[in-house]
Amino acid sequence: MDVDAAVFDVFGTLTDWRSSVTDVLSDIGGQAGLHADWPTVTDAWRHRYRPALRRILAGELSWRPLDDLHRLTLDEVLAEHGLDALGEADRDALVQAWHRLRPWPDASPGLELIHHTRVVTATLSNGGVGLLARLTKQAGLRFDCILSAELARSYKPDPQAYRTAAELLEVEPQRLLMVACHPDDLEAAAKAGLRTAYIPRPLEWGPAAGRVDPPAVVDLVADDVIGLASALGAPGRTRP
Amino acid sequence: MDVDAAVFDVFGTLTDWRSSVTDVLSDIGGQAGLHADWPTVTDAWRHRYRPALRRILAGELSWRPLDDLHRLTLDEVLAEHGLDALGEADRDALVQAWHRLRPWPDASPGLELIHHTRVVTATLSNGGVGLLARLTKQAGLRFDCILSAELARSYKPDPQAYRTAAELLEVEPQRLLMVACHPDDLEAAAKAGLRTAYIPRPLEWGPAAGRVDPPAVVDLVADDVIGLASALGAPGRTRP
Repeated sequence: MDVDAAVFDVFGTLTDWRSSVTDVLSDIGGQAGLHADWPTVTDAWRHRYRPALRRILAGELSWRPLDDLHRLTLDEVLAEHGLDALGEADRDALVQAWHRLRPWPDASPGLELIHHTRVVTATLSNGGVGLLARLTKQAGLRFDCILSAELARSYKPDPQAYRTAAELLEVEPQRLLMVACHPDDLEAAAKAGLRTAYIPRPLEWGPAAGRVDPPAVVDLVADDVIGLASALGAPGRTRP
Repeated sequence: MDVDAAVFDVFGTLTDWRSSVTDVLSDIGGQAGLHADWPTVTDAWRHRYRPALRRILAGELSWRPLDDLHRLTLDEVLAEHGLDALGEADRDALVQAWHRLRPWPDASPGLELIHHTRVVTATLSNGGVGLLARLTKQAGLRFDCILSAELARSYKPDPQAYRTAAELLEVEPQRLLMVACHPDDLEAAAKAGLRTAYIPRPLEWGPAAGRVDPPAVVDLVADDVIGLASALGAPGRTRP
């Protein structure tokens, strides 16, 4: 695949937010003497994410940083699950859990391989620039550039988020590849003129969740980031 | 020095623009059958840079990407030096020379050392995001984030360029270190509330140029990026 740059979704595509956030929730909740099915609380929190984005893109909520959005939906989820006892400091720490997510095992070696090709790599996430810089540094995810929907003061799947990434990288949209495990992200990127690569993450919602169907139209399907690196011309490498 | 993030000037502080651009000028000029004292032409081009920035910050010129500014000043310099024979494609290639600059020898190992500390590193240059992503990738300069005055739609030394960097990184200005070899850059950063580190680059304007005095007020003076890494808590390393 001949492109000049590749931008990557982060939550889900490169990192296992579910197990990472669940660990922090159960730690903090346990220390507060609370009991809950923590993976279910994590899932409920994440399920509130897309509707909240849609409210912002529809103009029902004003644009705000992702941390503020996470805090809003966390308060709702804690109330819903009878976890109101968690205080301010605990809630702040839970929002910060999204800054320190574990990468999938192939993400770091795959990005390192792509870094050594001529393809420029960047994040393109709804997380803010500061969150992404810290998350990728801590997770060992090597990027040539950090881009965020925040730079368009919007959120994916707003077409402006993808177009702003192409403009800042100074590449034509059709020379820019969007990499994600979420069909709606790829469909929106394609509508904005980008090329698309799908990576399945069947464990995103835990071992019991089913496989997500790839989007109807996609330029490339790769097993994981190492497979994507091969498709982008990186020399072969033994899998970790 | 206790800071959360460090942002770096690129042209001069990390890269040897003078010898890099002179090589491209003498190649392209030579192929066009032209003769000139090429280092002098490079210096003349660079000397037009700060006055052009000042015209933009004063509102006399509208904001434009650095490439367009380089093209404007290149046309003036070529006319001034009787090099009008250079065509469009050659002029475009000369502007692109600023995208591929050689790093000073300490820059790459020093940044690698800082990357492995808890301090988040970013560029903060008047070059655009796309230029910086390609330049740092090609030069082997490892950053956790790419920031540009372009993201404030301005140029250093406008205080908004420094404040936007702090906002995007989500750090307090007084927890953000500006690293540069140019006193005016550091003075403007200090006025915007940032901490400052000076690295001398006595060869920036070639071997015949004199040493630049450090700014009157600076929080830290380091010999080079490796020395800065030590000041930021990186473990020791043999110099290259």
